[in-house]
Amino acid sequence: MRTHYCGDLNGSHDGQEVVLCGWVQRRRDHGGVIFIDLRDREGLVQVVFDPDRAEIFSRAEQVRSEYVLKITGRVRPRPEGTVNPDLPTGAIEILGLDLEVLNASETPPMQLDSHAADASEEIRLRYRYLDLRRPEMQSRLRTRSQVTQAMRRFLDEHGFLDIETPILTKSTPEGARDYLVPSRTHPGEFFALPQSPQLFKQLLMMSGLDRYYQIARCFRDEDLRADRQPEFTQLDIEVSFMTEDELMNLMEEMIRLLFREVQGIELPNPFPRLTYAESMRRFGCDRPDLRVPLELIDIADLMEGVDFQVFAGPAKDPDGRVVALRLPKGGELSRKEIDGYTQFVGIYGARGLAYIKVNEWAAKGREGLQSPIVKNLTDAALEGIMARTGAVDGDLIFFGADKAKIVNESIGALRVKLGQERGLLEGEWRPLWVIDFPMFEEDPANQRWMALHHPFTAPKEDQLDLLETNPGACLSRAYDMVLNGTEIGGGSIRIHRDAVQRQVFKLLNISDEQAEERFGFLLKALRFGCPPHGGLAFGLDRLVMLMTGATSIRDVMAFPKTQTAACLLTDAPSPVDETQLKELSLRLRTRA
Amino acid sequence: MRTHYCGDLNGSHDGQEVVLCGWVQRRRDHGGVIFIDLRDREGLVQVVFDPDRAEIFSRAEQVRSEYVLKITGRVRPRPEGTVNPDLPTGAIEILGLDLEVLNASETPPMQLDSHAADASEEIRLRYRYLDLRRPEMQSRLRTRSQVTQAMRRFLDEHGFLDIETPILTKSTPEGARDYLVPSRTHPGEFFALPQSPQLFKQLLMMSGLDRYYQIARCFRDEDLRADRQPEFTQLDIEVSFMTEDELMNLMEEMIRLLFREVQGIELPNPFPRLTYAESMRRFGCDRPDLRVPLELIDIADLMEGVDFQVFAGPAKDPDGRVVALRLPKGGELSRKEIDGYTQFVGIYGARGLAYIKVNEWAAKGREGLQSPIVKNLTDAALEGIMARTGAVDGDLIFFGADKAKIVNESIGALRVKLGQERGLLEGEWRPLWVIDFPMFEEDPANQRWMALHHPFTAPKEDQLDLLETNPGACLSRAYDMVLNGTEIGGGSIRIHRDAVQRQVFKLLNISDEQAEERFGFLLKALRFGCPPHGGLAFGLDRLVMLMTGATSIRDVMAFPKTQTAACLLTDAPSPVDETQLKELSLRLRTRA
Repeated sequence: MRTHYCGDLNGSHDGQEVVLCGWVQRRRDHGGVIFIDLRDREGLVQVVFDPDRAEIFSRAEQVRSEYVLKITGRVRPRPEGTVNPDLPTGAIEILGLDLEVLNASETPPMQLDSHAADASEEIRLRYRYLDLRRPEMQSRLRTRSQVTQAMRRFLDEHGFLDIETPILTKSTPEGARDYLVPSRTHPGEFFALPQSPQLFKQLLMMSGLDRYYQIARCFRDEDLRADRQPEFTQLDIEVSFMTEDELMNLMEEMIRLLFREVQGIELPNPFPRLTYAESMRRFGCDRPDLRVPLELIDIADLMEGVDFQVFAGPAKDPDGRVVALRLPKGGELSRKEIDGYTQFVGIYGARGLAYIKVNEWAAKGREGLQSPIVKNLTDAALEGIMARTGAVDGDLIFFGADKAKIVNESIGALRVKLGQERGLLEGEWRPLWVIDFPMFEEDPANQRWMALHHPFTAPKEDQLDLLETNPGACLSRAYDMVLNGTEIGGGSIRIHRDAVQRQVFKLLNISDEQAEERFGFLLKALRFGCPPHGGLAFGLDRLVMLMTGATSIRDVMAFPKTQTAACLLTDAPSPVDETQLKELSLRLRTRA
Repeated sequence: MRTHYCGDLNGSHDGQEVVLCGWVQRRRDHGGVIFIDLRDREGLVQVVFDPDRAEIFSRAEQVRSEYVLKITGRVRPRPEGTVNPDLPTGAIEILGLDLEVLNASETPPMQLDSHAADASEEIRLRYRYLDLRRPEMQSRLRTRSQVTQAMRRFLDEHGFLDIETPILTKSTPEGARDYLVPSRTHPGEFFALPQSPQLFKQLLMMSGLDRYYQIARCFRDEDLRADRQPEFTQLDIEVSFMTEDELMNLMEEMIRLLFREVQGIELPNPFPRLTYAESMRRFGCDRPDLRVPLELIDIADLMEGVDFQVFAGPAKDPDGRVVALRLPKGGELSRKEIDGYTQFVGIYGARGLAYIKVNEWAAKGREGLQSPIVKNLTDAALEGIMARTGAVDGDLIFFGADKAKIVNESIGALRVKLGQERGLLEGEWRPLWVIDFPMFEEDPANQRWMALHHPFTAPKEDQLDLLETNPGACLSRAYDMVLNGTEIGGGSIRIHRDAVQRQVFKLLNISDEQAEERFGFLLKALRFGCPPHGGLAFGLDRLVMLMTGATSIRDVMAFPKTQTAACLLTDAPSPVDETQLKELSLRLRTRA
């Protein structure tokens, strides 16, 4: 129906007759002629109608914003002085020769120009088809499409097979709440929507398919805090007969390719690898934002002896931690700013935020330090702190002292916040691998072991005996890919031996009966020649969000749901007929 | 962990040391040496262990079928006389230098060699990971992956964006039963799993995204007759500003590319196009298998006057049809074979199957015909039949006379059956388009119009007035792609005008209130500048089944369900805890 996209026209088409289809972005009547900015997926172009062609002109007079038009016209250079260098098509315009109104439009309930983002999210979601007309939204969906395209091409070239796994399946063991689907043919029984294809991809390796991938829809019925969606998408991968090093190398090659092809960004080669222990020590978390050039410095040994229980207590507690965090030029911080940071770390359970402003340490020593806590610290402790942090005049040092978990979370978060707010970020894209995770963490509530990843993660081959003797010290063959402080992917080499899997279930307090009921088919499959295998999954929504600079995963999904898991556009979920419930052998509970 | 796939080795690797990982297909001890056929995704290779290396040899003695091995060895030509020309690696063998058992296997409950297909489907589904080790199954999944890969590449190159639409959504209007998902956050309300992304893809066109595709999971809670699955996959496509001709041309180009790239098959260019009316007339159905060179020949005009009510009645009935079907060389059919076909057409409601054997028409005329019905037919009628069917001596002519629907279904099916059983098929792959479908068909039960495709299908632009005056005569802008008698894809140009959509809803007996409740968001969207658009969907499972020559769609899915919609492997669906039901505000109905 058309010869070109609007946004593709430029000086090279000068003199050509073109047919365009698109939406009216704007109509202006100026100096006796009508200007219509016509928009399609590729961009905007200006069309001029002059009164010489009376019938066409009068048709053009009637169009309004968002009308759908088919326009025949001739490309010509814009008159001198009217070239718009901000617009890719800004050197030319179209002289309108014919105009057909393909469809009219009522006045949209939201603006579709640069003020569109001012519309409430409710309006944007209810009229999603209008919100998606905005170039910004289209560009994000296009990037998403390019990202999956590049992933697929890479994986196809490397011998991976794209294999679909079921959506109607059995409850998976990811720990979150499942969405359930009642079965009509098996009354009283339910399918679960998959939280991930974890067990199926392992079964595909047991099937000898060697290299699997799928861009897979996953479901979690969670209380939607932060930026979660009931359904989300992951690039799901599993391979046989590969070590974790080989797999990590291959995966970072893929991610580098993505960034290069889609965004023209060159990521480091190789990605740095940090052990979990080192990451926790230096950054207080297992997904460090390496753009922030601040680090947590352990000073417990300096504080054990001081006469200041706030520091000495945690310093002597085996579960405690005492750290310093140097903020270069932090001396500039006002009292009010410091109060703000103190409140901030409070969110993470810290009961205060001690600090020292280093005013004139070099010249004046202790007297050159400004701080409520200096009086409590010995000279040796102060000298140790200054030496270890490398603080210089003008800096500020924050302190965290508490249970290690609280220190890590609060000072870890403060580190990132300072990095962002004080303009300290170094480099735009800082990926890394975090490796050598512990197999287990202790559930403080009931002193039980919990899997740090999931129960199918393999322990290090040379630490199998630790499963017996000291499970808390046993490291796993898991790995997470982290980008700018966000975990974008993670996985592990899996357990491929029946006996080890049973041992791990036992440590996780899963009885033989429970294991049989929930994972019986997996345990059975392990007995029929399961190959060594492993894999990982990348969170596609979050990855695309990072790549496009969007602030919510809702902005990189075509039809997202609200925080209460509803679709404002289609009005789902919704009530159903009694007959449908009857067919499913269900009845609604009367609400209490 | 390995240097090569087993199946990739050949004479060019002669003398190389290789490391292989795979499964033991077979172990034979012969002449003092051990032969192991090692299998991986790419094929089989023979490994030889000789007793010189005692320790390795004794390890090799212990392996059993389906053990997982890592073998280091040296490639060498097979001794003269032992080359196996049936095996791609059959010119070489591996001299085993080292062997590591990566995992053992119990004796599998089914054979994995050429006798595997003898296993019951129950065993195959319950031990799917074993069934999938068979090269035949792997090859089908690989073809499926190659098919989607080729589709995606074609569509990416043609500017289509891959966009995901929700799985948790509102009930769609495809007519089958929805799978429902109870909402926890909206008690008493339900999501539906999509029967297709129909409305979302139309909304994407209203969003100006111009060209959309998705390889989309769809769900239907049907009684599983024939070869259906509760979840299936379609390649879903929608475009704006394209005519049906442009879209059909593009789509057949894609299908030709698929067959060429994946199977090395050259399909016709262009695909023939048949109107619905012509297809029904010549083949009795709207998805004709063009490989069968038989056609239904109308003879009602010849029969109106005969003194034989079986023919004359339907010939005079406006809803009746009388046809002849000539079977070349059908004179060979035995009485028993004809009885079999008579029974066969009975399945479709035909009350008999009249026939004439043409023994010596040329020489003897009426006397040369062998048939129970000849006596009832006039000379003129007989001559008409012979002339119109072009029958020659040795042929047989079948007849159908009844309501048109019964004649079409019974003789249409007989035509295909004869084609297959009598070895008449011409050409291997015979695609076509069927076009010019009626908008509506009458529901005989309650004399209401029903949509032949779906309620969003546009009528022909020049027949809009027929919606008022004669809806039954109004043709739609729908098109189906048919291959060898199977509909592999179908779609239409959609209604893009509010008023037309409302008019069609009204004809379909959908009240304004119902329309508002079910499709309100679509009707609203039509008022804000909806572009002309259309699309189609291809059934991926069925297409891959055809391409691989599989006889069931279960054989081209990794983890299919049974006829009662259960997964024998994972034992889904299954009962859930009372707490889970409580959270969903549901209770089970006590079974009656």
